[in-house]
Amino acid sequence: MTLNKKLKIALAQIDIIAGRPDLNTKKIISAIENAKKEGDELIVFSEMAVPGYLLGDEWESNSYVKDCFAYNEDIKCATQGIVAIWGNVDIDSSKRNEDGRIRKYNAAFVAQNGEYVGKSPIHKTLLPKYREFDDARHFYSLRKEAEENGTKTEKLIEPVEVQINGECRKLGVILCEDMWSDDYSVNPIEILLSKNAELLVNLSCSPWTWRKNNKRHSVVRSRIEKHPAYFIYANNVGIQNNGKNIFLYDGNSSIYNPDGTLLKVATDYKEEIIRTTLFDEETRSIPNLKVSDARDREELYAALIYGIRRFFENLPNKKVVLGLSGGIDSALSAALLAQALGPENVYAINMPSQYNSKTTKDIAQGLAQNLGIHYASISIQNSYENTIKEIEATEFVQLDGSNTKTELIFSALNRENIQSRDRGSRILAGVASILNAVFVNNGNKTETALGYATLYGDVNGALAPIADLYKQEVYELARFINRKKELIPKAIFMIPASAELSENHNVDEGKGDPILYPYHDKLVRAFVEFRLDPEDILRYYKNGELSQICKCEKDLIDSYFPTAACFIADLEHKWRIYKINYFKRIQAPPIIAVSKRAFGFDLRESQNGFHFTREYLKLKEEILGQ
Amino acid sequence: MTLNKKLKIALAQIDIIAGRPDLNTKKIISAIENAKKEGDELIVFSEMAVPGYLLGDEWESNSYVKDCFAYNEDIKCATQGIVAIWGNVDIDSSKRNEDGRIRKYNAAFVAQNGEYVGKSPIHKTLLPKYREFDDARHFYSLRKEAEENGTKTEKLIEPVEVQINGECRKLGVILCEDMWSDDYSVNPIEILLSKNAELLVNLSCSPWTWRKNNKRHSVVRSRIEKHPAYFIYANNVGIQNNGKNIFLYDGNSSIYNPDGTLLKVATDYKEEIIRTTLFDEETRSIPNLKVSDARDREELYAALIYGIRRFFENLPNKKVVLGLSGGIDSALSAALLAQALGPENVYAINMPSQYNSKTTKDIAQGLAQNLGIHYASISIQNSYENTIKEIEATEFVQLDGSNTKTELIFSALNRENIQSRDRGSRILAGVASILNAVFVNNGNKTETALGYATLYGDVNGALAPIADLYKQEVYELARFINRKKELIPKAIFMIPASAELSENHNVDEGKGDPILYPYHDKLVRAFVEFRLDPEDILRYYKNGELSQICKCEKDLIDSYFPTAACFIADLEHKWRIYKINYFKRIQAPPIIAVSKRAFGFDLRESQNGFHFTREYLKLKEEILGQ
Repeated sequence: MTLNKKLKIALAQIDIIAGRPDLNTKKIISAIENAKKEGDELIVFSEMAVPGYLLGDEWESNSYVKDCFAYNEDIKCATQGIVAIWGNVDIDSSKRNEDGRIRKYNAAFVAQNGEYVGKSPIHKTLLPKYREFDDARHFYSLRKEAEENGTKTEKLIEPVEVQINGECRKLGVILCEDMWSDDYSVNPIEILLSKNAELLVNLSCSPWTWRKNNKRHSVVRSRIEKHPAYFIYANNVGIQNNGKNIFLYDGNSSIYNPDGTLLKVATDYKEEIIRTTLFDEETRSIPNLKVSDARDREELYAALIYGIRRFFENLPNKKVVLGLSGGIDSALSAALLAQALGPENVYAINMPSQYNSKTTKDIAQGLAQNLGIHYASISIQNSYENTIKEIEATEFVQLDGSNTKTELIFSALNRENIQSRDRGSRILAGVASILNAVFVNNGNKTETALGYATLYGDVNGALAPIADLYKQEVYELARFINRKKELIPKAIFMIPASAELSENHNVDEGKGDPILYPYHDKLVRAFVEFRLDPEDILRYYKNGELSQICKCEKDLIDSYFPTAACFIADLEHKWRIYKINYFKRIQAPPIIAVSKRAFGFDLRESQNGFHFTREYLKLKEEILGQ
Repeated sequence: MTLNKKLKIALAQIDIIAGRPDLNTKKIISAIENAKKEGDELIVFSEMAVPGYLLGDEWESNSYVKDCFAYNEDIKCATQGIVAIWGNVDIDSSKRNEDGRIRKYNAAFVAQNGEYVGKSPIHKTLLPKYREFDDARHFYSLRKEAEENGTKTEKLIEPVEVQINGECRKLGVILCEDMWSDDYSVNPIEILLSKNAELLVNLSCSPWTWRKNNKRHSVVRSRIEKHPAYFIYANNVGIQNNGKNIFLYDGNSSIYNPDGTLLKVATDYKEEIIRTTLFDEETRSIPNLKVSDARDREELYAALIYGIRRFFENLPNKKVVLGLSGGIDSALSAALLAQALGPENVYAINMPSQYNSKTTKDIAQGLAQNLGIHYASISIQNSYENTIKEIEATEFVQLDGSNTKTELIFSALNRENIQSRDRGSRILAGVASILNAVFVNNGNKTETALGYATLYGDVNGALAPIADLYKQEVYELARFINRKKELIPKAIFMIPASAELSENHNVDEGKGDPILYPYHDKLVRAFVEFRLDPEDILRYYKNGELSQICKCEKDLIDSYFPTAACFIADLEHKWRIYKINYFKRIQAPPIIAVSKRAFGFDLRESQNGFHFTREYLKLKEEILGQ
């Protein structure tokens, strides 16, 4: 690398509100003004900083995209004496997208002294279309432009040349996925570096997931290993959603040295402008952050608190109602809500029927006391009995002349579900409506996967804050919270997880859910996150690799399932209920996504029942025939 | 066109079950055997005939796609003495998709005498990614293969050459979207015809929507206008879903003459093999079907009946429960269900509170009688009063030492919603559980859009059969049904549409919903299907074009809104509630999609509130300033 003059840069980590270009632009311009005052020569913003990123099919609104595009003028005008790079939608009304609508690009705009610079805007080359990403649905890529023009993509990828302080700087400007090119036939960074980019600028809108930041650090290092160059990663903070999933943007905007070490990192979840001087021997790297397991839990806790707090900021008020059963899920939920919104905004209701133990009722009240939240108890026993009486007193008559009569008698399982619906749809919804509040869903990921919840009962809620955590993770996070201060009563860790909907769920007798959480948590994760199905699971089991793949002790699996036949029966049962209970997930509330795959728009499902492959059936025969 | 020897072809329109390659393959092989017996020389199946098409992210399951792929062997082996073309997933384990998973293509396989022919499999060139389509999410396109190999797409598109009866036939095999190329930079049909394809074969998996078949006829005609060629369009029947939407496959598989006229068409919604002889002067065209408005309604009726019937075939039993209010929505729902499932499977419940009129109760019972369905009446008055009493008797106490108390008093609106939830979550869910049945949602599209429904109340249901029909369409379809036989009591058309949840909804006093359906139906359609937003609407209004664009009489709009200020106030209110009430749609049941845009996976939304563009605000100022 040649010795260049110093370059003073600012990296603006802004809280982007999807759907509010007016507010976002205001923040961008104010950050530019601030940078000018500080004497910065270059300021960088995140991807889609004007429109926001997760808009659903609002991208099809011509008025909206034109509105967003028009804000470019305002930003451009603010760039007297500074170079600014920001993400926005680029439009070309003379051409069409492949959906027949106005042509749109996910773009980076570069302006200086009130004028666009070089080849600005730069169009995104690689459009992600996995998980929650729908880029290819809405935007035209640089690759398609190349195809359309009969040229090669690499010819269209070029550094932006800009004069700063008498020096011609070559900026390699890319957008988010452009740096995650391992699975693509085009590598934008390599192309830019081969064309002598001396500074890479990545505009991202990248949600937080566990250990993603560590992964990014190593990707950056590998990308600039052969051609050292400074690397700026600009990400936003805030939350964005596509209905079924709420994604958390931690920012973690970073400036890397040409050797891949970190020069500067913005504070997670905070609006912040970080600044430094590049091409300066004085600047030093900070040690690379390795995320330990302990930090994982803290990060997860911070993520959930942030997600809850921000979700409620969009609501008429911050008040929240929740059911408090005395079980671990609602306990964790309550603790998170109290922390995120303040105990004065949390209204917890214990709703016992004849099946709820004194043990759990006491836990619920003790927890409410520890948290200092509002508490009430409403018995559902009267309504429960009344529902049974009223409906069982009813007869259908077929009005076809035959007058055929149909009696209505509840089964034991039906009676369980009455209680859950009474709580979710009568009490919680009723109380929330009075307080002009919303109520939350306390379900965890394992239950959500296996359908161990009642539709219009505990499936209800405006938000599912912990539905992306497996049951064991719920316990772990509860223990993590208690490490600071024992908020969640100890007794909760002693009793079995139980729905308490019948005599078969008596916690005092050690009875609980029909789920072996230490194993089924892992099995569900294998289905949902590793995308394995029974054929894979059974093959691993047969080869003795299952415990390793699932990270579940072999002894545990063997103790649960002493024979292969037992193991297989359970596997088939769980696969069946996982697939079939999708009908409940269709009607389930938004989930805060924190894992590598959350139910919802992140994991798109069809209501197709279940199927076993021929290879699975062969394997099963081999095993059971042995 | 040169004179060729005759070619005997069969077009197999099969009922494809998504997720069941075993059953689908069985049907394919049996159709091939049948064709061999009949002396056919070529048989064609639809796109993704083995795996099904709408699988959600089940496409990520390696076991599943390998299982489907393996069935190709079985089909190939069945092609002794015949050429077969079928749709299936093609996989290449040595390469990766852009999501890092195993490489997958949406492909057509061509085999003869137990061997693949020519360049088989053929990979789909154009991958749709609008509406419900997610092809680009799962499959690698021929365009990307070209990019990867440094060549041009047109070089990779070639006819399949196959020897039949001593003749070398050039078949132009394409998949679905490949024929809908107007908005793409590649035109596969043009390329194939320029390379002398003499017969075009399009494998599709294309759901029914209004007038789509007419549109297809004209597209086929335009594609082969310059280079005449036979055109075979193979589509499947059945239903497929992606959770939030259920799509109906009408088949309508067609064989076109080289001049674009129809030679043969399969019966809608029926499994059928149609056969004919091509390159034969004897064969004649049938007159092109122009769909009249009258037929539209019949088609819509047939589509809904088919959708309902097939949906219930996947459930444990065909029984269905529904609320029967005496209003038009539930009346239409009941009539459709009785027709689709048989009256003996329909259980209707009238659930009056103090606010329900004798008028509507009588209509409900009369309707049940006309349909010959099971009927019961359960009053919710007692439970409604009890809920108010129980909750209002409750006090929250803040357990923070302050013992702050919070009283709970229901407002008038809250009281309305209690009734709805009592019906949906207590009665209907309870009764359905006893009958091991499901209950349906009776909402229409206008209500769904504007959020005029109660979550956990009338938003509930396992299926929303009429939620893709605007209110006026509900009336129209009810009248259409009555034309054959007066099943729906006349009185229903005389009373206002009303929720009957308070004294303000008294139908006998002519009071009803706060929605001006004749106009708001059209406004909602403009938002949802035309993808217009307030800026567009207001511009059309200002220019006097709104009535034409919305197909709504100008006098009607002017009579509802005597001043521009009234019009604007209503527009803003409706936009606001349309956007904000998405929170209810997130938790709403699957909708049978029959329009050009259905709520759900077809129209992807984010919970971002509402926004008015700067152009809108300017327009508003101009208008109100005048």
